[in-house]
Amino acid sequence: MIKHFLSLSDLSKADLRAILDDAHAMKAARLGQPKGALDKDPALSGHTLALIFEKSSTRTRFSFDMGIRQLGGSSITATSSDMQLGRGESAADTVRVLSRFVDGIMLRANSHDTLTELATYSDVPIINGLTDYNHPCQIMADLMTLEERAKATHGKDLSEMTLSWIGDGNNVLVSFVNAAAQLGYALRISSPEGYRVNGQTLEAAKAKGANITADLTPAEAAKGADALITDCWVSMGDTDKEERLAAFPPYQIDQKLLKTAAPDAAFLHCLPAYRGQEMTAEVFEGPQSVVWDEAENRMHAQKAVIKWCFGK
Amino acid sequence: MIKHFLSLSDLSKADLRAILDDAHAMKAARLGQPKGALDKDPALSGHTLALIFEKSSTRTRFSFDMGIRQLGGSSITATSSDMQLGRGESAADTVRVLSRFVDGIMLRANSHDTLTELATYSDVPIINGLTDYNHPCQIMADLMTLEERAKATHGKDLSEMTLSWIGDGNNVLVSFVNAAAQLGYALRISSPEGYRVNGQTLEAAKAKGANITADLTPAEAAKGADALITDCWVSMGDTDKEERLAAFPPYQIDQKLLKTAAPDAAFLHCLPAYRGQEMTAEVFEGPQSVVWDEAENRMHAQKAVIKWCFGK
Amino acid sequence: MIKHFLSLSDLSKADLRAILDDAHAMKAARLGQPKGALDKDPALSGHTLALIFEKSSTRTRFSFDMGIRQLGGSSITATSSDMQLGRGESAADTVRVLSRFVDGIMLRANSHDTLTELATYSDVPIINGLTDYNHPCQIMADLMTLEERAKATHGKDLSEMTLSWIGDGNNVLVSFVNAAAQLGYALRISSPEGYRVNGQTLEAAKAKGANITADLTPAEAAKGADALITDCWVSMGDTDKEERLAAFPPYQIDQKLLKTAAPDAAFLHCLPAYRGQEMTAEVFEGPQSVVWDEAENRMHAQKAVIKWCFGK
Repeated sequence: MIKHFLSLSDLSKADLRAILDDAHAMKAARLGQPKGALDKDPALSGHTLALIFEKSSTRTRFSFDMGIRQLGGSSITATSSDMQLGRGESAADTVRVLSRFVDGIMLRANSHDTLTELATYSDVPIINGLTDYNHPCQIMADLMTLEERAKATHGKDLSEMTLSWIGDGNNVLVSFVNAAAQLGYALRISSPEGYRVNGQTLEAAKAKGANITADLTPAEAAKGADALITDCWVSMGDTDKEERLAAFPPYQIDQKLLKTAAPDAAFLHCLPAYRGQEMTAEVFEGPQSVVWDEAENRMHAQKAVIKWCFGK
Repeated sequence: MIKHFLSLSDLSKADLRAILDDAHAMKAARLGQPKGALDKDPALSGHTLALIFEKSSTRTRFSFDMGIRQLGGSSITATSSDMQLGRGESAADTVRVLSRFVDGIMLRANSHDTLTELATYSDVPIINGLTDYNHPCQIMADLMTLEERAKATHGKDLSEMTLSWIGDGNNVLVSFVNAAAQLGYALRISSPEGYRVNGQTLEAAKAKGANITADLTPAEAAKGADALITDCWVSMGDTDKEERLAAFPPYQIDQKLLKTAAPDAAFLHCLPAYRGQEMTAEVFEGPQSVVWDEAENRMHAQKAVIKWCFGK
Repeated sequence: MIKHFLSLSDLSKADLRAILDDAHAMKAARLGQPKGALDKDPALSGHTLALIFEKSSTRTRFSFDMGIRQLGGSSITATSSDMQLGRGESAADTVRVLSRFVDGIMLRANSHDTLTELATYSDVPIINGLTDYNHPCQIMADLMTLEERAKATHGKDLSEMTLSWIGDGNNVLVSFVNAAAQLGYALRISSPEGYRVNGQTLEAAKAKGANITADLTPAEAAKGADALITDCWVSMGDTDKEERLAAFPPYQIDQKLLKTAAPDAAFLHCLPAYRGQEMTAEVFEGPQSVVWDEAENRMHAQKAVIKWCFGK
């Protein structure tokens, strides 16, 4: 049975916990090494991962490429235009060929359907590196970052934290929703009308016992929260830029709003960030911002995801 | 004397036989290994191959990249637009520089002339990864696949087989023609008028003793044959799409035609494939189709080609 | 203190001398090895360098990629369009992320400002792989090539040589100007009006003691010189092609001009070259041309630059 990593809703509490624990342990074990150096016990020695991009990427590309190297493996990076994926050849046929050449595949896809088609026809693990629907690797990094921050400050477990998403109800938020029931954090959501998170996803999470409160004002969401989290107002591929720039200003996270959160509250953002839009420069560059650790943790979290897929 | 791999017509029977035997042996030796793991006796340790693409590619890219890794070497992949090959700088000047940096070069070229210019000025082996004229690596994989299939079924040698090409008389077919005299298979060709194989190539092969019958109907070509082989009707770069889609339908390989071939006949296609055009979905997905093995064998065959170029 | 390699004007005589000596020694130590083989004492074992390109490249790409491999490290290559550098995300934010993933960064930038912004915000060494302002890696390779040529002929030290630049007063020339004071060569410059080297750069070098004579005729520049050096008249990104092709013909280096130089004078060109424009085919292909060694030396010189940045 091949273990794909497509959505956090597919993973049990034990799976999520094991991945996070492994990520923390691997990060700690590497202190002071050159960044491309092998891990001490490289778990994926001799393995090759295809990294396939339908959209451009900085963090996903570098974090996966470095991670697989540290695990003893290597990568082949290709863009969908290099391959004519989805135009010249169906995703199904492409992946039946790739399965013969590589040990696993990371895909950044425009459409979640391309990802699931790949997984259906693949003989090797498929890892979701962002789709229009969700972004599970990002949320594993975010949760890892929240745990690091908690250890250095208030000491809470994830199940004791209140996380507040203020802004676009997008694919990144979906993955926070997808893991809420298993990990037990309270999730508060404040998004403008017309930009709210997928309703079916929300209901499915609540049915599994997730503690999620949606349709809050920014003030309601922020009050006493352990983390304020946002994303850019206009993501790659969004074509309604003007409408968005009109709808989102009340949802900006500024110092005043951050002060209403818990004293040690963390500010998270998956980048790229636009100062003066979704948050002020003061918040982004301030002492509560953990955005650079969050970016680095993409690599550590994804290494644990890759190992989980391969049963290592 | 540098050994380039430009056309199967340049290779003797002994060369072709040695490459095929090595490919089978290397494939067998790797069973159960991670796909990126080193071969037991990596023949190209420390060598670097440049993989240069003037056209997009899935199979050629992944099969060469994985193959050189298994041989202990590594690759540098570049597109012609990364390099301005043929626009900013002549192929001759480019290859004089590349010869200083890499141990060998694989080129997928729009024009066969670019390939031969590269070979003329290169100090390192040049490998043809497809041109407008021919596709020798594909045919080495196809012959390897036919031998595998024969071993599992009718047991014939290549020299006892009848191979039938039904469809576009393109660059892939040229390489079947180029190896026919040396390997002794009978080659039957059925292509619509206006899309027939290069006449000079055909005459040259016949002059060397090749057993080739051209200008057949699909029914004549298929009857009792050991393999039915085709390719898509509209390849990358073809601009006469409508004319092609009008001319080719009588050349579709369907289950009825396949049944007229020998009982264990194989169906081959170098991909990408368009179900409902050059063959039906039933044939493509049926038990006589060996297209996925054929794709995988690109890698094994090319590893043997690389070793042959380097005298290993 | 991070050691960036941005401009030769930042480097002392001792630094420049150490890099050149190391480059010669490493080149000598590799004779007869496969081109991708590790150096005997690989200094950058486990290190990863990002190679980022805002412009297409052949020599810079292959020379850096091969060099870092020989040093025991590896690379991740990305184009600015893969990353949306400078459009979707500021160079400052991009490099703060990259610093978490890689050990060093080589950038080929359209604008020198992008390079200096990267260096300002980077936690890892930044290496200049060409900007609109200068090209220090090229000049390290050129100086290395001049020393090789001198060793085989007239035996002069760099400080005893007269180098003549005849042609476009561009970014490559700037780096010759930037190193002139430290290394002591005499530099003569002959460029058409409107295409002369940056005046501030020239004055700064003279203030440091550089022996530079500008605004010469080609005949004045060439007479008795130890090297004639040029570059193409229309470089990537130049939009005034017609004006350039009108202004530059008197600056062509032909056999007649080369004969007026010293008997063992070398002809250098950083490529790509356009025969019949900046020099005749006779000069470019003649026995005094060292252009292919010069291209190869990019790799050896840059390996020494990388080691210098990392304090190895």
